[in-house]
Amino acid sequence: MTYCVAMKLGAGMVFASDTRTNAGVDNISRVDKLHVFSRQGDRVIVALSAGNLSISQGAINQIERVALESPDKPNIYSVRSLYDVAELFGNALRDTRQREGEYLRAQNIDASASFIVGGQVAGERLRLFLVYSEGNFIESSDEAPFFQNGETKYGKPVIDRVISPDLALNDAIKLTLVSFDSTMRSNISVGLPIDLLVYPLDSFDASRQHRIEENDPYFRELGRLWNDGLKQAFAGIPEPQRLAVVA
Amino acid sequence: MTYCVAMKLGAGMVFASDTRTNAGVDNISRVDKLHVFSRQGDRVIVALSAGNLSISQGAINQIERVALESPDKPNIYSVRSLYDVAELFGNALRDTRQREGEYLRAQNIDASASFIVGGQVAGERLRLFLVYSEGNFIESSDEAPFFQNGETKYGKPVIDRVISPDLALNDAIKLTLVSFDSTMRSNISVGLPIDLLVYPLDSFDASRQHRIEENDPYFRELGRLWNDGLKQAFAGIPEPQRLAVVA
Repeated sequence: MTYCVAMKLGAGMVFASDTRTNAGVDNISRVDKLHVFSRQGDRVIVALSAGNLSISQGAINQIERVALESPDKPNIYSVRSLYDVAELFGNALRDTRQREGEYLRAQNIDASASFIVGGQVAGERLRLFLVYSEGNFIESSDEAPFFQNGETKYGKPVIDRVISPDLALNDAIKLTLVSFDSTMRSNISVGLPIDLLVYPLDSFDASRQHRIEENDPYFRELGRLWNDGLKQAFAGIPEPQRLAVVA
Repeated sequence: MTYCVAMKLGAGMVFASDTRTNAGVDNISRVDKLHVFSRQGDRVIVALSAGNLSISQGAINQIERVALESPDKPNIYSVRSLYDVAELFGNALRDTRQREGEYLRAQNIDASASFIVGGQVAGERLRLFLVYSEGNFIESSDEAPFFQNGETKYGKPVIDRVISPDLALNDAIKLTLVSFDSTMRSNISVGLPIDLLVYPLDSFDASRQHRIEENDPYFRELGRLWNDGLKQAFAGIPEPQRLAVVA
Protein backbone atom coordinates (compact mmCIF):
# COMPACT_ATOMS: atom_id res chain seq x y z
CA MET A 1 0.00 0.00 0.00
CA THR A 2 0.99 3.59 -0.57
CA TYR A 3 0.21 6.88 1.04
CA CYS A 4 1.20 10.07 -0.69
CA VAL A 5 0.04 13.65 -0.52
CA ALA A 6 0.84 16.94 -2.24
CA MET A 7 -0.25 20.41 -1.14
CA LYS A 8 -0.31 23.58 -3.24
CA LEU A 9 -0.12 26.73 -1.14
CA GLY A 10 0.49 30.37 -1.87
CA ALA A 11 4.08 30.04 -0.65
CA GLY A 12 4.95 26.87 -2.51
CA MET A 13 4.30 23.14 -2.51
CA VAL A 14 4.97 20.14 -0.31
CA PHE A 15 5.17 16.61 -1.71
CA ALA A 16 5.49 13.44 0.36
CA SER A 17 5.28 9.71 -0.16
CA ASP A 18 5.93 6.61 1.83
CA THR A 19 8.41 4.15 0.33
CA ARG A 20 6.91 0.77 1.12
CA THR A 21 5.91 -1.73 -1.51
CA ASN A 22 4.63 -5.21 -1.09
CA ALA A 23 3.77 -8.11 -3.32
CA GLY A 24 2.08 -10.06 -0.56
CA VAL A 25 2.92 -9.52 3.08
CA ASP A 26 6.10 -11.63 2.84
CA ASN A 27 7.68 -9.53 0.11
CA ILE A 28 8.05 -6.01 1.41
CA SER A 29 10.73 -3.63 0.30
CA ARG A 30 11.46 0.03 -0.27
CA VAL A 31 11.06 1.88 -3.52
CA ASP A 32 11.11 5.45 -4.67
CA LYS A 33 7.62 6.72 -5.31
CA LEU A 34 8.69 10.38 -5.41
CA HIS A 35 10.16 11.28 -8.80
CA VAL A 36 11.73 14.65 -9.56
CA PHE A 37 12.26 16.19 -13.00
CA SER A 38 13.97 19.55 -12.76
CA ARG A 39 16.01 22.02 -14.73
CA GLN A 40 17.51 24.83 -12.68
CA GLY A 41 15.69 28.09 -13.27
CA ASP A 42 13.17 26.60 -15.70
CA ARG A 43 11.06 23.88 -14.05
CA VAL A 44 10.57 21.65 -11.07
CA ILE A 45 8.15 18.78 -11.61
CA VAL A 46 7.40 16.19 -8.96
CA ALA A 47 5.43 12.99 -9.55
CA LEU A 48 4.15 10.75 -6.74
CA SER A 49 3.24 7.27 -7.91
CA ALA A 50 0.74 4.78 -6.51
CA GLY A 51 -0.68 1.46 -7.62
CA ASN A 52 0.93 -1.36 -9.55
CA LEU A 53 4.65 -0.70 -9.36
CA SER A 54 5.55 -2.25 -12.73
CA ILE A 55 2.97 -0.04 -14.43
CA SER A 56 4.04 3.19 -12.70
CA GLN A 57 7.73 2.44 -13.32
CA GLY A 58 6.93 1.62 -16.94
CA ALA A 59 5.23 4.99 -17.36
CA ILE A 60 8.11 6.86 -15.69
CA ASN A 61 10.56 5.00 -17.92
CA GLN A 62 8.66 6.03 -21.04
CA ILE A 63 8.66 9.68 -19.94
CA GLU A 64 12.41 9.61 -19.29
CA ARG A 65 13.19 7.75 -22.49
CA VAL A 66 11.29 10.14 -24.73
CA ALA A 67 13.15 13.08 -23.16
CA LEU A 68 16.48 11.33 -23.65
CA GLU A 69 16.06 9.71 -27.05
CA SER A 70 13.71 12.10 -28.81
CA PRO A 71 14.50 15.54 -27.40
CA ASP A 72 12.78 17.16 -30.40
CA LYS A 73 9.45 15.55 -29.45
CA PRO A 74 7.31 17.20 -26.74
CA ASN A 75 8.76 15.89 -23.50
CA ILE A 76 8.79 16.60 -19.79
CA TYR A 77 11.72 19.03 -20.14
CA SER A 78 10.37 20.87 -23.17
CA VAL A 79 6.61 21.43 -22.77
CA ARG A 80 5.72 24.90 -21.56
CA SER A 81 2.84 24.03 -19.21
CA LEU A 82 2.22 21.63 -16.37
CA TYR A 83 -1.05 20.78 -18.07
CA ASP A 84 0.98 19.24 -20.87
CA VAL A 85 3.10 17.40 -18.30
CA ALA A 86 -0.03 15.87 -16.79
CA GLU A 87 -1.02 14.78 -20.28
CA LEU A 88 2.39 13.14 -20.79
CA PHE A 89 1.83 11.11 -17.63
CA GLY A 90 -1.69 10.18 -18.70
CA ASN A 91 -0.49 9.02 -22.09
CA ALA A 92 2.43 7.11 -20.58
CA LEU A 93 0.02 5.32 -18.26
CA ARG A 94 -2.28 4.47 -21.16
CA ASP A 95 0.60 3.16 -23.26
CA THR A 96 2.01 1.06 -20.43
CA ARG A 97 -1.35 -0.39 -19.47
CA GLN A 98 -2.11 -1.20 -23.08
CA ARG A 99 1.20 -3.01 -23.39
CA GLU A 100 1.09 -4.86 -20.07
CA GLY A 101 -2.50 -4.84 -18.88
CA GLU A 102 -3.74 -7.86 -20.79
CA TYR A 103 -1.09 -10.15 -19.30
CA LEU A 104 -1.74 -8.92 -15.78
CA ARG A 105 -5.51 -9.19 -16.04
CA ALA A 106 -5.10 -12.79 -17.23
CA GLN A 107 -3.63 -13.49 -13.76
CA ASN A 108 -6.20 -11.32 -11.97
CA ILE A 109 -3.50 -8.78 -11.17
CA ASP A 110 -4.67 -5.21 -10.82
CA ALA A 111 -2.93 -3.21 -13.54
CA SER A 112 -3.97 0.20 -12.26
CA ALA A 113 -1.54 2.94 -11.30
CA SER A 114 -1.88 6.69 -10.89
CA PHE A 115 0.15 9.81 -10.30
CA ILE A 116 -0.01 13.06 -8.44
CA VAL A 117 1.94 15.51 -10.61
CA GLY A 118 2.76 19.06 -9.63
CA GLY A 119 5.31 21.81 -9.57
CA GLN A 120 6.09 24.87 -11.62
CA VAL A 121 7.18 25.57 -15.17
CA ALA A 122 8.71 29.03 -15.78
CA GLY A 123 6.00 31.42 -16.93
CA GLU A 124 3.25 29.54 -15.11
CA ARG A 125 1.84 29.54 -11.59
CA LEU A 126 2.12 26.52 -9.30
CA ARG A 127 -0.10 23.68 -10.55
CA LEU A 128 -1.12 20.35 -9.16
CA PHE A 129 -2.79 17.46 -11.00
CA LEU A 130 -4.13 14.02 -10.20
CA VAL A 131 -3.64 11.63 -13.12
CA TYR A 132 -6.00 8.67 -12.92
CA SER A 133 -5.21 5.15 -13.95
CA GLU A 134 -7.26 5.61 -17.12
CA GLY A 135 -4.98 8.48 -18.16
CA ASN A 136 -7.49 11.31 -17.62
CA PHE A 137 -6.61 13.94 -15.04
CA ILE A 138 -7.94 16.76 -12.90
CA GLU A 139 -6.38 19.91 -11.44
CA SER A 140 -6.64 20.90 -7.78
CA SER A 141 -8.95 23.73 -6.77
CA ASP A 142 -8.21 26.63 -4.45
CA GLU A 143 -10.80 25.40 -1.95
CA ALA A 144 -9.12 21.98 -1.62
CA PRO A 145 -5.51 22.69 -2.59
CA PHE A 146 -4.21 19.15 -2.11
CA PHE A 147 -4.36 15.65 -3.52
CA GLN A 148 -3.83 12.37 -1.74
CA ASN A 149 -3.36 8.96 -3.26
CA GLY A 150 -3.33 5.38 -1.99
CA GLU A 151 -4.52 4.88 1.59
CA THR A 152 -6.03 8.35 1.84
CA LYS A 153 -8.82 8.28 4.38
CA TYR A 154 -7.08 7.97 7.75
CA GLY A 155 -4.93 11.01 7.07
CA LYS A 156 -7.58 13.20 5.45
CA PRO A 157 -9.61 14.62 8.38
CA VAL A 158 -6.66 16.56 9.81
CA ILE A 159 -5.78 18.03 6.41
CA ASP A 160 -9.41 19.03 5.85
CA ARG A 161 -9.38 20.92 9.14
CA VAL A 162 -6.04 22.72 8.87
CA ILE A 163 -5.26 23.39 5.20
CA SER A 164 -5.80 26.75 3.57
CA PRO A 165 -4.00 28.43 0.67
CA ASP A 166 -2.22 30.83 3.05
CA LEU A 167 -0.74 28.07 5.22
CA ALA A 168 3.01 28.65 5.72
CA LEU A 169 5.31 26.09 4.12
CA ASN A 170 6.72 24.98 7.45
CA ASP A 171 3.20 24.41 8.75
CA ALA A 172 2.42 22.46 5.60
CA ILE A 173 5.41 20.20 6.35
CA LYS A 174 4.03 19.67 9.86
CA LEU A 175 0.56 18.97 8.50
CA THR A 176 1.92 16.49 6.00
CA LEU A 177 3.78 14.59 8.70
CA VAL A 178 0.79 14.58 11.07
CA SER A 179 -1.28 13.14 8.24
CA PHE A 180 1.35 10.40 7.76
CA ASP A 181 1.41 9.70 11.48
CA SER A 182 -2.37 9.14 11.50
CA THR A 183 -2.20 6.92 8.43
CA MET A 184 0.67 4.77 9.69
CA ARG A 185 -1.03 4.18 13.03
CA SER A 186 -4.13 2.79 11.33
CA ASN A 187 -2.53 0.93 8.41
CA ILE A 188 0.72 -0.94 8.95
CA SER A 189 1.24 -1.38 5.22
CA VAL A 190 2.10 2.32 4.98
CA GLY A 191 5.58 2.68 6.48
CA LEU A 192 8.67 4.76 7.01
CA PRO A 193 10.82 6.15 5.56
CA ILE A 194 8.91 9.07 4.11
CA ASP A 195 10.29 10.98 1.15
CA LEU A 196 9.56 14.68 1.36
CA LEU A 197 10.18 17.51 -1.08
CA VAL A 198 9.48 21.16 -0.34
CA TYR A 199 9.25 23.58 -3.25
CA PRO A 200 9.13 27.33 -2.51
CA LEU A 201 7.24 29.38 -5.11
CA ASP A 202 9.36 30.70 -8.01
CA SER A 203 12.53 29.07 -6.64
CA PHE A 204 12.92 26.56 -9.49
CA ASP A 205 15.05 24.65 -7.04
CA ALA A 206 14.39 20.97 -6.24
CA SER A 207 17.11 20.59 -3.65
CA ARG A 208 14.90 20.59 -0.54
CA GLN A 209 14.49 16.83 -0.38
CA HIS A 210 14.52 14.84 2.83
CA ARG A 211 14.16 11.20 3.71
CA ILE A 212 12.55 10.76 7.12
CA GLU A 213 13.81 7.52 8.65
CA GLU A 214 12.59 5.35 11.50
CA ASN A 215 14.71 7.13 14.09
CA ASP A 216 14.01 10.70 12.96
CA PRO A 217 13.76 12.67 16.23
CA TYR A 218 11.44 15.35 14.85
CA PHE A 219 8.95 12.88 13.41
CA ARG A 220 8.92 10.91 16.68
CA GLU A 221 8.37 14.03 18.73
CA LEU A 222 5.64 15.18 16.36
CA GLY A 223 3.84 11.83 16.75
CA ARG A 224 4.09 12.00 20.52
CA LEU A 225 2.89 15.62 20.74
CA TRP A 226 0.04 15.02 18.33
CA ASN A 227 -1.12 11.99 20.29
CA ASP A 228 -0.97 13.92 23.59
CA GLY A 229 -2.68 16.91 21.99
CA LEU A 230 -5.55 14.78 20.69
CA LYS A 231 -6.05 13.22 24.10
CA GLN A 232 -6.09 16.68 25.66
CA ALA A 233 -8.58 17.89 23.06
CA PHE A 234 -10.74 14.87 23.88
CA ALA A 235 -10.47 15.49 27.62
CA GLY A 236 -11.45 19.12 27.04
CA ILE A 237 -14.90 18.15 25.76
CA PRO A 238 -17.42 18.13 28.60
CA GLU A 239 -19.33 14.95 29.38
CA PRO A 240 -22.71 14.53 27.74
CA GLN A 241 -25.49 15.73 30.02
CA ARG A 242 -28.76 14.66 28.49
CA LEU A 243 -27.18 11.46 27.15
CA ALA A 244 -25.18 10.68 30.26
CA VAL A 245 -25.40 7.45 32.15
CA VAL A 246 -26.04 8.15 35.81
CA ALA A 247 -24.96 5.25 37.97
CA MET B 1 -23.44 5.26 2.85
CA THR B 2 -23.51 4.23 6.48
CA TYR B 3 -21.32 4.77 9.46
CA CYS B 4 -21.92 2.74 12.58
CA VAL B 5 -19.80 1.79 15.54
CA ALA B 6 -20.17 -0.30 18.69
CA MET B 7 -17.83 -0.35 21.69
CA LYS B 8 -17.61 -3.02 24.37
CA LEU B 9 -16.16 -1.72 27.62
CA GLY B 10 -15.93 -3.02 31.16
CA ALA B 11 -18.80 -0.77 32.20
CA GLY B 12 -21.13 -1.53 29.31
CA MET B 13 -21.60 -0.91 25.63
CA VAL B 14 -22.29 1.99 23.31
CA PHE B 15 -23.95 1.53 19.91
CA ALA B 16 -24.41 4.24 17.31
CA SER B 17 -25.47 4.53 13.71
CA ASP B 18 -26.25 7.23 11.26
CA THR B 19 -29.68 7.10 9.64
CA ARG B 20 -29.04 8.14 6.07
CA THR B 21 -29.78 5.96 3.10
CA ASN B 22 -29.49 6.74 -0.54
CA ALA B 23 -30.30 5.02 -3.78
CA GLY B 24 -28.44 7.54 -5.89
CA VAL B 25 -27.78 11.07 -4.68
CA ASP B 26 -31.31 12.20 -5.58
CA ASN B 27 -33.06 9.67 -3.38
CA ILE B 28 -31.90 10.23 0.16
CA SER B 29 -34.00 9.44 3.18
CA ARG B 30 -33.80 8.33 6.78
CA VAL B 31 -34.03 4.79 7.98
CA ASP B 32 -33.47 2.93 11.20
CA LYS B 33 -30.20 1.07 11.12
CA LEU B 34 -30.16 0.47 14.88
CA HIS B 35 -32.39 -2.44 15.82
CA VAL B 36 -33.11 -3.44 19.41
CA PHE B 37 -34.33 -6.82 20.63
CA SER B 38 -34.83 -6.86 24.38
CA ARG B 39 -36.65 -8.65 27.14
CA GLN B 40 -36.50 -6.91 30.48
CA GLY B 41 -34.14 -8.69 32.87
CA ASP B 42 -33.17 -11.35 30.32
CA ARG B 43 -31.46 -9.85 27.27
CA VAL B 44 -30.60 -6.71 25.37
CA ILE B 45 -29.44 -7.32 21.81
CA VAL B 46 -28.58 -4.48 19.45
CA ALA B 47 -27.93 -4.89 15.73
CA LEU B 48 -26.46 -2.17 13.52
CA SER B 49 -27.03 -2.76 9.83
CA ALA B 50 -25.01 -1.62 6.83
CA GLY B 51 -25.06 -2.32 3.12
CA ASN B 52 -27.97 -3.05 0.81
CA LEU B 53 -31.06 -1.94 2.70
CA SER B 54 -33.45 -4.46 1.17
CA ILE B 55 -31.10 -7.28 2.16
CA SER B 56 -30.55 -6.09 5.75
CA GLN B 57 -34.26 -5.42 6.22
CA GLY B 58 -35.04 -8.84 4.77
CA ALA B 59 -32.72 -10.47 7.29
CA ILE B 60 -34.20 -8.49 10.21
CA ASN B 61 -37.68 -9.45 9.03
CA GLN B 62 -36.78 -13.13 9.00
CA ILE B 63 -35.37 -12.92 12.53
CA GLU B 64 -38.52 -11.20 13.81
CA ARG B 65 -40.85 -13.53 11.97
CA VAL B 66 -39.26 -16.70 13.31
CA ALA B 67 -39.53 -15.34 16.85
CA LEU B 68 -43.19 -14.44 16.30
CA GLU B 69 -44.47 -17.37 14.26
CA SER B 70 -42.29 -20.24 15.49
CA PRO B 71 -41.55 -19.45 19.12
CA ASP B 72 -40.57 -23.10 19.70
CA LYS B 73 -37.70 -22.82 17.17
CA PRO B 74 -34.41 -21.29 18.31
CA ASN B 75 -34.95 -17.57 17.95
CA ILE B 76 -33.52 -14.25 19.04
CA TYR B 77 -35.55 -14.26 22.26
CA SER B 78 -34.86 -17.87 23.17
CA VAL B 79 -31.21 -18.73 22.47
CA ARG B 80 -29.00 -18.62 25.56
CA SER B 81 -25.87 -17.08 24.03
CA LEU B 82 -24.99 -14.09 21.92
CA TYR B 83 -22.89 -16.42 19.81
CA ASP B 84 -26.12 -18.10 18.73
CA VAL B 85 -27.64 -14.70 18.03
CA ALA B 86 -24.74 -13.87 15.70
CA GLU B 87 -25.39 -17.17 13.96
CA LEU B 88 -29.08 -16.30 13.54
CA PHE B 89 -28.04 -13.07 11.81
CA GLY B 90 -25.53 -14.87 9.64
CA ASN B 91 -28.10 -17.44 8.55
CA ALA B 92 -30.74 -14.77 7.95
CA LEU B 93 -28.27 -12.90 5.72
CA ARG B 94 -27.46 -16.08 3.81
CA ASP B 95 -31.14 -16.91 3.31
CA THR B 96 -32.02 -13.41 2.17
CA ARG B 97 -29.09 -13.16 -0.22
CA GLN B 98 -29.89 -16.58 -1.66
CA ARG B 99 -33.49 -15.51 -2.24
CA GLU B 100 -32.75 -12.03 -3.63
CA GLY B 101 -29.11 -11.96 -4.71
CA GLU B 102 -29.52 -13.45 -8.17
CA TYR B 103 -32.04 -10.78 -9.23
CA LEU B 104 -29.89 -7.95 -7.89
CA ARG B 105 -26.68 -9.23 -9.47
CA ALA B 106 -28.46 -9.42 -12.82
CA GLN B 107 -28.76 -5.61 -12.58
CA ASN B 108 -25.24 -5.17 -11.21
CA ILE B 109 -26.66 -4.20 -7.83
CA ASP B 110 -24.48 -5.00 -4.85
CA ALA B 111 -26.42 -7.47 -2.70
CA SER B 112 -24.09 -7.35 0.28
CA ALA B 113 -25.14 -6.35 3.77
CA SER B 114 -23.64 -6.88 7.19
CA PHE B 115 -24.37 -6.43 10.88
CA ILE B 116 -22.66 -5.47 14.07
CA VAL B 117 -24.46 -7.47 16.75
CA GLY B 118 -23.85 -7.10 20.47
CA GLY B 119 -25.35 -6.91 23.91
CA GLN B 120 -25.89 -9.25 26.80
CA VAL B 121 -27.90 -12.40 27.41
CA ALA B 122 -28.50 -13.28 31.08
CA GLY B 123 -25.79 -15.66 32.26
CA GLU B 124 -23.23 -14.36 29.78
CA ARG B 125 -20.77 -11.50 29.70
CA LEU B 126 -21.07 -8.61 27.25
CA ARG B 127 -20.31 -9.80 23.72
CA LEU B 128 -19.85 -8.06 20.39
CA PHE B 129 -19.82 -9.64 16.92
CA LEU B 130 -19.32 -8.52 13.36
CA VAL B 131 -21.44 -10.56 10.95
CA TYR B 132 -20.10 -10.40 7.40
CA SER B 133 -22.16 -10.34 4.28
CA GLU B 134 -21.30 -14.01 3.65
CA GLY B 135 -22.87 -14.96 6.97
CA ASN B 136 -19.65 -15.80 8.82
CA PHE B 137 -18.81 -13.73 11.87
CA ILE B 138 -16.07 -12.76 14.33
CA GLU B 139 -16.08 -11.64 17.95
CA SER B 140 -14.30 -8.52 19.21
CA SER B 141 -11.07 -8.85 21.17
CA ASP B 142 -10.11 -7.12 24.40
CA GLU B 143 -7.27 -5.26 22.66
CA ALA B 144 -9.60 -3.72 20.09
CA PRO B 145 -12.98 -3.72 21.85
CA PHE B 146 -14.98 -2.13 19.05
CA PHE B 147 -16.34 -2.73 15.57
CA GLN B 148 -17.10 -0.21 12.89
CA ASN B 149 -19.04 -0.72 9.69
CA GLY B 150 -19.63 1.25 6.51
CA GLU B 151 -17.48 4.37 6.03
CA THR B 152 -15.05 3.39 8.80
CA LYS B 153 -11.69 4.97 8.07
CA TYR B 154 -12.17 8.68 8.75
CA GLY B 155 -13.47 7.99 12.25
CA LYS B 156 -11.04 5.23 13.21
CA PRO B 157 -7.81 7.07 14.16
CA VAL B 158 -9.40 8.82 17.15
CA ILE B 159 -10.94 5.59 18.44
CA ASP B 160 -7.59 3.79 18.06
CA ARG B 161 -5.95 6.44 20.21
CA VAL B 162 -8.51 6.77 22.99
CA ILE B 163 -10.30 3.43 23.47
CA SER B 164 -9.44 1.00 26.24
CA PRO B 165 -11.59 -1.54 28.10
CA ASP B 166 -11.66 0.68 31.20
CA LEU B 167 -13.01 3.74 29.39
CA ALA B 168 -16.02 5.16 31.26
CA LEU B 169 -19.37 4.90 29.47
CA ASN B 170 -19.79 8.66 29.31
CA ASP B 171 -16.35 8.96 27.73
CA ALA B 172 -17.30 6.24 25.26
CA ILE B 173 -20.36 8.30 24.27
CA LYS B 174 -18.04 11.28 23.71
CA LEU B 175 -15.62 9.16 21.71
CA THR B 176 -18.41 7.77 19.58
CA LEU B 177 -19.68 11.25 18.76
CA VAL B 178 -16.19 12.59 18.00
CA SER B 179 -15.72 9.68 15.61
CA PHE B 180 -19.02 10.58 13.91
CA ASP B 181 -17.98 14.23 13.70
CA SER B 182 -14.76 13.28 11.89
CA THR B 183 -16.62 10.95 9.53
CA MET B 184 -19.35 13.42 8.64
CA ARG B 185 -16.84 16.18 7.91
CA SER B 186 -15.08 14.02 5.34
CA ASN B 187 -18.04 12.15 3.84
CA ILE B 188 -21.28 14.01 3.26
CA SER B 189 -23.16 10.78 2.59
CA VAL B 190 -22.95 10.01 6.31
CA GLY B 191 -25.43 12.32 8.00
CA LEU B 192 -27.43 13.26 11.05
CA PRO B 193 -29.48 12.23 12.92
CA ILE B 194 -27.42 9.68 14.83
CA ASP B 195 -29.15 6.91 16.73
CA LEU B 196 -27.37 6.08 19.97
CA LEU B 197 -27.96 3.36 22.54
CA VAL B 198 -26.05 3.06 25.79
CA TYR B 199 -26.17 -0.25 27.63
CA PRO B 200 -24.73 -0.42 31.18
CA LEU B 201 -23.38 -3.85 32.15
CA ASP B 202 -25.92 -6.23 33.76
CA SER B 203 -28.72 -3.66 33.46
CA PHE B 204 -30.78 -5.66 30.93
CA ASP B 205 -32.37 -2.33 30.16
CA ALA B 206 -32.55 -0.98 26.61
CA SER B 207 -34.19 2.32 27.46
CA ARG B 208 -31.12 4.56 27.07
CA GLN B 209 -31.78 5.43 23.43
CA HIS B 210 -31.25 8.86 21.96
CA ARG B 211 -31.67 10.37 18.54
CA ILE B 212 -29.16 13.17 17.98
CA GLU B 213 -30.68 15.66 15.58
CA GLU B 214 -29.22 18.45 13.46
CA ASN B 215 -29.71 21.08 16.15
CA ASP B 216 -28.46 19.04 19.11
CA PRO B 217 -26.55 21.58 21.22
CA TYR B 218 -24.17 19.04 22.79
CA PHE B 219 -23.15 17.52 19.46
CA ARG B 220 -22.57 20.98 17.99
CA GLU B 221 -20.48 22.05 20.96
CA LEU B 222 -18.52 18.79 20.81
CA GLY B 223 -17.73 19.36 17.12
CA ARG B 224 -16.59 22.90 17.80
CA LEU B 225 -14.42 21.97 20.79
CA TRP B 226 -12.87 19.02 18.96
CA ASN B 227 -12.03 21.19 15.98
CA ASP B 228 -10.49 23.87 18.20
CA GLY B 229 -8.62 21.23 20.20
CA LEU B 230 -7.15 19.67 17.07
CA LYS B 231 -5.98 23.04 15.85
CA GLN B 232 -4.40 23.73 19.23
CA ALA B 233 -2.71 20.31 19.21
CA PHE B 234 -1.38 21.12 15.75
CA ALA B 235 -0.18 24.55 16.83
CA GLY B 236 1.57 22.94 19.81
CA ILE B 237 3.92 20.96 17.57
CA PRO B 238 7.13 22.92 17.01
CA GLU B 239 8.18 23.80 13.48
CA PRO B 240 10.52 21.41 11.74
CA GLN B 241 14.14 22.49 12.17
CA ARG B 242 16.22 20.37 9.84
CA LEU B 243 13.40 20.27 7.27
CA ALA B 244 12.46 23.91 7.59
CA VAL B 245 12.35 26.35 4.73
CA VAL B 246 14.33 29.45 5.61
CA ALA B 247 13.21 32.44 3.59
